[in-house]
Amino acid sequence: MAMRTRVTDMFGIELPIFAFSHCRDVVAAVSRAGGMGVLGALYFTPEELEMELKWIDDHVDGKPYGVDVVMPASYEGADFAPEELVSRLQGMIPEGHRQFVEDLLAGHGVPPLSEDADPGKVLLGWTDATARPQVEVALRHPIALLANALGPPPADVVELAHAKGVKVAALASTPRHAVKQVEVGVDVVVAQGTEAGGHTGEISTMVLIPQVVDAVDVPVLAAGGIGGGRQMAAGMALGAEGVWTGSIWLTVEEADTPELAKSRILAATSRDTVRSRSWTGKPARLLRNEWTDAWEGANSPGTLPMPLQFMLVSDALRRIGRSDAAELATFPAGQIIGTMNQVKSARDVVFEMVEEYIEAVGRLGGITES
Amino acid sequence: MAMRTRVTDMFGIELPIFAFSHCRDVVAAVSRAGGMGVLGALYFTPEELEMELKWIDDHVDGKPYGVDVVMPASYEGADFAPEELVSRLQGMIPEGHRQFVEDLLAGHGVPPLSEDADPGKVLLGWTDATARPQVEVALRHPIALLANALGPPPADVVELAHAKGVKVAALASTPRHAVKQVEVGVDVVVAQGTEAGGHTGEISTMVLIPQVVDAVDVPVLAAGGIGGGRQMAAGMALGAEGVWTGSIWLTVEEADTPELAKSRILAATSRDTVRSRSWTGKPARLLRNEWTDAWEGANSPGTLPMPLQFMLVSDALRRIGRSDAAELATFPAGQIIGTMNQVKSARDVVFEMVEEYIEAVGRLGGITES
Repeated sequence: MAMRTRVTDMFGIELPIFAFSHCRDVVAAVSRAGGMGVLGALYFTPEELEMELKWIDDHVDGKPYGVDVVMPASYEGADFAPEELVSRLQGMIPEGHRQFVEDLLAGHGVPPLSEDADPGKVLLGWTDATARPQVEVALRHPIALLANALGPPPADVVELAHAKGVKVAALASTPRHAVKQVEVGVDVVVAQGTEAGGHTGEISTMVLIPQVVDAVDVPVLAAGGIGGGRQMAAGMALGAEGVWTGSIWLTVEEADTPELAKSRILAATSRDTVRSRSWTGKPARLLRNEWTDAWEGANSPGTLPMPLQFMLVSDALRRIGRSDAAELATFPAGQIIGTMNQVKSARDVVFEMVEEYIEAVGRLGGITES
Repeated sequence: MAMRTRVTDMFGIELPIFAFSHCRDVVAAVSRAGGMGVLGALYFTPEELEMELKWIDDHVDGKPYGVDVVMPASYEGADFAPEELVSRLQGMIPEGHRQFVEDLLAGHGVPPLSEDADPGKVLLGWTDATARPQVEVALRHPIALLANALGPPPADVVELAHAKGVKVAALASTPRHAVKQVEVGVDVVVAQGTEAGGHTGEISTMVLIPQVVDAVDVPVLAAGGIGGGRQMAAGMALGAEGVWTGSIWLTVEEADTPELAKSRILAATSRDTVRSRSWTGKPARLLRNEWTDAWEGANSPGTLPMPLQFMLVSDALRRIGRSDAAELATFPAGQIIGTMNQVKSARDVVFEMVEEYIEAVGRLGGITES
């Protein structure tokens, strides 16, 4: 079984199913199954990313895969010199915010980090200074796609990728974003609805996709709420030429998602997520819990702009992760988690999606033919 | 061109396109075009509703149509005697809330109502006491469908409808709601995503529809974000057997929507709506403007529960409607308004939807066949 759109032609893949994951095993498994795995680089140092991509190269059987970096178009401190970036940004975090976080953790009995804990290597995940070395590492590998999760990538990064024959994708949550991305040379637009996990806009996938498809000439992938073949067929009916998925890979056998998070996701309904600035300062859909509620509550000092919010909370999130305070442990998750209640292999998720897709398209045909 | 699902069979219609509108002309036009118009009864007294339905009977060429009432499962004052309902509810509105509304209007130069203005006849739109007489009127007409916009209708109302051969539909925003509705005898579930206008839940159409389809045996209509044929095809791909539309009828030629509202909608993007309690006390998607912003603002006293909020604001909304303070004039509107930028006849909207639907289904077929 193969499907054919401009996207399958562009990448030489059998199935226009893109799988975003921070886990190399998932990336390789989806690419081997005929789709395209895309590794989220955010949490990796350049050295770690090098190791992850080397592993994928060795396990992907020559199939194409991609890398996703986060280069925000705007963030606090963009003008600071790299060597003083951290200290100057740290100085911008108000004491009241630090106290709010400490009080919240104390209220839930979360202990401080032990002294030998790795000191917050991901502090600056959402800055150009962090993303650029990741891009350089990625382009030394035979990747087929470089994706940017926060708007249009810098024009010189697009050129760098194109010079190596690497296609560039960017996530858009409005048709206006999509047009801007195509103007800087993006080859594929990922139109992502508000129901998606992680950084996300306000417009739903159902409303957004046709608007983006009509606004740009490049192929569009539908993202947000895509978990099965009916949703894949819906996304393609809306005009997309493929789908971009994320949350559904959190619970597959291959995923290195912490057990607690996995069990939370398997038990969650689609109402258990919330669009919140409490993770990075920009709105992102997260698992709703006492952490996200606290930042919405009457005592909240309000969130800080990117990247200050994550600098403020990253240690707290690590402390929570090592504690028993499961009620505070949040992470990016889309509304689709309400339909995920079984652990399967990544390969089975891909094949079941295709099977359900074919069934849905056949059913649609029957409605008008009969 | 005809389509066939359990829904078209159930109602003897050619196209499984349901059009919710408060305007009788739209209702009749959509039914005549092969779909099913559904008149929103909320704003009408029983006497007015009688006149509207008589008009539809005379203009629908014998085609089926429906009526939509609002019988909330829960609201303040449900235990009060009808004759003291208004005064007791009025007494529950805090003075600080009245003052907030007065200050907001004064700040925008909105004059008071003239003395001869009709004194707030729709004050109690969202109570059983108002909806029941509407049901009685509706069932005296040859309606094919009685829909309830806020959850499961009372069991005796379902029986009353069924005894007259009238099918019953209810709007659901979670699979759990849908199951409850089917338990009280609902024949069709309208699964409505968060992108819809008016009272709406949190889950997007893309995520919600398959969950509801899997949870109930009765046919499901997809609602929320459905404005064209690609969205119709998407809704059906998700498993729905028809679509329920609302916002798109606000700007058709036949609609009696005030000119100001029409021009606002035609100019709006899909980011210009917000889910807000500022209209009725329950979350409803409205045009975002200075009214909805004020209720979210630092000085907001917070909204009141249904039906107190609408009792509090109904006169204010009428005053705004008669003033020049367009920046405060809000109304229910779904995210689809971002794609509505042209006035067409209701008939053309129906036919263009079908044409685009057929094109989308054909395109989907080509993706796997080629």
